Amino acid sequence: MQINDNFLKLAAGYLFPEIGRRVSVFSEANAEALKAKPIIKLGIGDVTEPMPEACRTAMIKAVNELGKAETFRGYGPAFGYDFLREKIAQHDFVDRGCEIAADEVFVSDGSKCDSANLLDILGPGNRVAVCDPVYPVYVDTNVMAGHTGAADESGRYAGLTYLPVTAENGFAPPLPGEKADVIYLCSPNNPTGAVLDRAALTAWVDYANANGALILFDAAYAAFITDDELPRSIFEIDGARTCAIELRSFSKSAAFTGTRCAYTVVPKDLMGRSSDGQEVSLHALWSRRQSTKFNCVAYVVQRGAEAVYSDDGRAQTGELISFYMENARLIREALSAAGMTVHGAEHAPYAWVGCPEGVTSWAMFDKLLHEAHLVCTPGAGFGSCGEGYFRLSAFNSRENVEAAIERVAAGVGV
Amino acid sequence: MQINDNFLKLAAGYLFPEIGRRVSVFSEANAEALKAKPIIKLGIGDVTEPMPEACRTAMIKAVNELGKAETFRGYGPAFGYDFLREKIAQHDFVDRGCEIAADEVFVSDGSKCDSANLLDILGPGNRVAVCDPVYPVYVDTNVMAGHTGAADESGRYAGLTYLPVTAENGFAPPLPGEKADVIYLCSPNNPTGAVLDRAALTAWVDYANANGALILFDAAYAAFITDDELPRSIFEIDGARTCAIELRSFSKSAAFTGTRCAYTVVPKDLMGRSSDGQEVSLHALWSRRQSTKFNCVAYVVQRGAEAVYSDDGRAQTGELISFYMENARLIREALSAAGMTVHGAEHAPYAWVGCPEGVTSWAMFDKLLHEAHLVCTPGAGFGSCGEGYFRLSAFNSRENVEAAIERVAAGVGV
Repeated sequence: MQINDNFLKLAAGYLFPEIGRRVSVFSEANAEALKAKPIIKLGIGDVTEPMPEACRTAMIKAVNELGKAETFRGYGPAFGYDFLREKIAQHDFVDRGCEIAADEVFVSDGSKCDSANLLDILGPGNRVAVCDPVYPVYVDTNVMAGHTGAADESGRYAGLTYLPVTAENGFAPPLPGEKADVIYLCSPNNPTGAVLDRAALTAWVDYANANGALILFDAAYAAFITDDELPRSIFEIDGARTCAIELRSFSKSAAFTGTRCAYTVVPKDLMGRSSDGQEVSLHALWSRRQSTKFNCVAYVVQRGAEAVYSDDGRAQTGELISFYMENARLIREALSAAGMTVHGAEHAPYAWVGCPEGVTSWAMFDKLLHEAHLVCTPGAGFGSCGEGYFRLSAFNSRENVEAAIERVAAGVGV
Repeated sequence: MQINDNFLKLAAGYLFPEIGRRVSVFSEANAEALKAKPIIKLGIGDVTEPMPEACRTAMIKAVNELGKAETFRGYGPAFGYDFLREKIAQHDFVDRGCEIAADEVFVSDGSKCDSANLLDILGPGNRVAVCDPVYPVYVDTNVMAGHTGAADESGRYAGLTYLPVTAENGFAPPLPGEKADVIYLCSPNNPTGAVLDRAALTAWVDYANANGALILFDAAYAAFITDDELPRSIFEIDGARTCAIELRSFSKSAAFTGTRCAYTVVPKDLMGRSSDGQEVSLHALWSRRQSTKFNCVAYVVQRGAEAVYSDDGRAQTGELISFYMENARLIREALSAAGMTVHGAEHAPYAWVGCPEGVTSWAMFDKLLHEAHLVCTPGAGFGSCGEGYFRLSAFNSRENVEAAIERVAAGVGV
């Protein structure tokens, strides 16, 4: 049988497995030295602190329900239980003035999966725009789907529009010069930590509506925005219901990276076009895609996610977020004090740090690993405009964050 | 933006939502009558009995681990935890003489999802063969992926090869007349309940190896085989490692339909071809697909699945399976005694029942719903060769199964 040739275009292994490989090689060769100074991982954005008690209590209650025939739950609704969809719509949207109904919320097993799977309902003829640097999954999944040509030497794929995001433009992607049909925006941004303000987001919504384009708005880090003036949802912007899909996740705000629950909002007003010009509802297409190819997530997990919206759950996730944002502040201040240029880490759990003059980001990665036993994410792994930067995640214990910044402040790698 | 036009080719709503719709309409119009004789659902194959205690205990332990930083689990390995992959390889394969290694097992959130997602790694030029009747997801996902033309009046799609499965051929699909590149086989079969024996499966493996074809072997119901001579895995057949992928699920054997855990076995010996004739490992492609587009299932769920292989778990899932198979026996015997022709229900939890002469399967569905307040699945929903049959599931309480067969035995619908 014939394989999907597009996979052969993929320029490199997915970023995080490559980081894992380098860390393994180093760890095996330096077991003794690592006993005195263990590796601290501020690379992959994985949470470290316990899941809120409210979520665990709800999950245990749900497991117990599975033990009795009267309360047992088999297949759930394809798009998620109403108890969860309703709370999401109310608390994350209606309470913030966004007109989103419960049946526009599709519960899923992760924003990574959602961003990848959404390509199933889009045609092959769209011009796709991504930021550079960018979360690699947006690009790789378009390559796999055959929406690109081959990669060039810098790792950029023919057929994609890259929107350079740099210190010069304040890490706000510029509107594309050529017409784009599908645009990925991530705010708060992974990897730069930048947040799109109301004016920037309005410009994008207006652009999308004027050009019949779709914005895939990844707001997986929305809970980390500390300034209430900044939009947490694209649906806070007038006109977004006709041009945007939003992705949200419980991973980082409720310690769900290993428990898997997220959701996608597809407004009913959002229309695409078939190749013969017919208007087609994306809500209807996504409903068909999800009911045919997915069975939603565990009842137990959905009960855990629901508990995020209880009084206890809100208080506990609030504490968790404050804890990580305090880590972010410590990182930002310590590295700035050490003379480094630090972006982000104010409304996002990521610091985007400039490498010293003339040091590439993979060289910086190796240097931090070998000298400070510290794992970062090299900026170049996110695209050619990420060269010269590295990303530090605020997701770790206070002890590890303090040790990490002490190692850096001691001059290692600077 | 442009949508995926292939979705517009889909001939009808996915079968089970349509059944749900008819049941809702009937229920709303007959609320009073349903109080005296409530609806019994033997339609969708959803389990009803509690999850085994061993699984629940393991899940609760795992939830509690998430409450302490020292035992908290964030992102898990992309293909599943080794603790689960190793037990699967040992108990489901090595112990039955199949040479399958733990790193050939990919843990997932369901066989439906896996069967759909596997299309991501296959090219567009393959000739795809499915049985008729068939689990609709195999067909619909190929339509969505653009591997077919339009549907004809009977609901068959141009470009697919249909293998008629009928009483005449003993519900064993015949080898295709034209060369097929990708072949879906499901054994024990949904919907017919038929099982492929060693000789039949060997013929398919030989065909696939001779023609460079891939068999997608759906063994989601393997645990229901009661005769130890019948193969539970295609990897019990010599040569399968170079031509087959197998799908397995915890849904039906361990009450996981609402908890979501399954796995796919992709042997390292399995090769496909790129369009320029290069040999490419499907194991490598699937690894790339899963690490880029999926984040595996909850740690808590994987601990629950692991417990299926403990002594208690094996005893408890064994009881659960025996319970449902006793339901199957009751259904088979009662309907046979009532003069109906019943297939399956011996090594599978499904009875495939002939409709009375001249009654279509949707007419039979409506008749059973209206007269017996019994929900079945109309055979025609699985393909044109399913016309004249309906499927009854053995997944229900003993009380409901006994009431259902009493209603049928009383002459309703016969």
